[in-house]
Amino acid sequence: MGDDVNAVIEEGAVVLNDPFIKQMIIQLRAVDSYGTYDTWSDARVLDPMILTKARRREIPLVGDPDETTVSRVKAFYNGISQLIEKETGIMAVPVVNLTYEGFGRVLITVGKLVVLDKIQRDVHRFGFESPEKLIAAAHILLNKAIKLVNDYREVAEL
Amino acid sequence: MGDDVNAVIEEGAVVLNDPFIKQMIIQLRAVDSYGTYDTWSDARVLDPMILTKARRREIPLVGDPDETTVSRVKAFYNGISQLIEKETGIMAVPVVNLTYEGFGRVLITVGKLVVLDKIQRDVHRFGFESPEKLIAAAHILLNKAIKLVNDYREVAEL
Repeated sequence: MGDDVNAVIEEGAVVLNDPFIKQMIIQLRAVDSYGTYDTWSDARVLDPMILTKARRREIPLVGDPDETTVSRVKAFYNGISQLIEKETGIMAVPVVNLTYEGFGRVLITVGKLVVLDKIQRDVHRFGFESPEKLIAAAHILLNKAIKLVNDYREVAEL
Repeated sequence: MGDDVNAVIEEGAVVLNDPFIKQMIIQLRAVDSYGTYDTWSDARVLDPMILTKARRREIPLVGDPDETTVSRVKAFYNGISQLIEKETGIMAVPVVNLTYEGFGRVLITVGKLVVLDKIQRDVHRFGFESPEKLIAAAHILLNKAIKLVNDYREVAEL
């Protein structure tokens, strides 16, 4: 998908300046253990996170996620953790627990508070229809998490 | 280790009646996906959880845990989760997140409360010196978890 000639994210796209997208790209580069992204532009690194309807149709319904796809899931939740930490001033720890078959659970904890808890299914189809939908999904999760920390700060500080 | 001729747990040992040990055996049988334990006595199922000093000396310092060892770690924390649930009346969910190298993190959550959070190291050497030490270790974790639920019941009920 990274070599997709029909890139969805164009070089220099305005969306690349969005704070969550910037964080997302940092995190994608951080989980790229083989250095594949070293020579890639930000647009190209972000591009495979976007699964348009056409792209999604090309992915089988059932399948095992490859390492790169799993690393994107991790990058997404690592990005959310980072922003929770930035907003609340308390360390946020992501736990991504997936089986080979692409099922599992993602948690983010702040102190003894679970601020995000999501069942994952079909990780081989992980992605967002557009960068705007990616940003929107991240903000919903982020806002919920920050509200939980504010509501139960004592537990988040344990 | 299950085939160790020098069993530490004797058939009919009093310790097999301890409530946590009973729970432990239930959980060990529950994670035995190949049915290996079907014909084994409770004493034999429990036995490999006990790593006496002599047994521990036989395990290399560095090594990758096999599936059976990982299943014992899961059984231990599943047992603790079950007892937390029994004591508090709220569902407890274990998350065992280990790498192939036997490092990782174990969490138990009750609602949005993290009631147990342990870094795991050297999982290939997972075990307890005696059944009494296993019971004692479980009770320390259990009591801490129950205290957390009692102290922050509102978060545990989220």
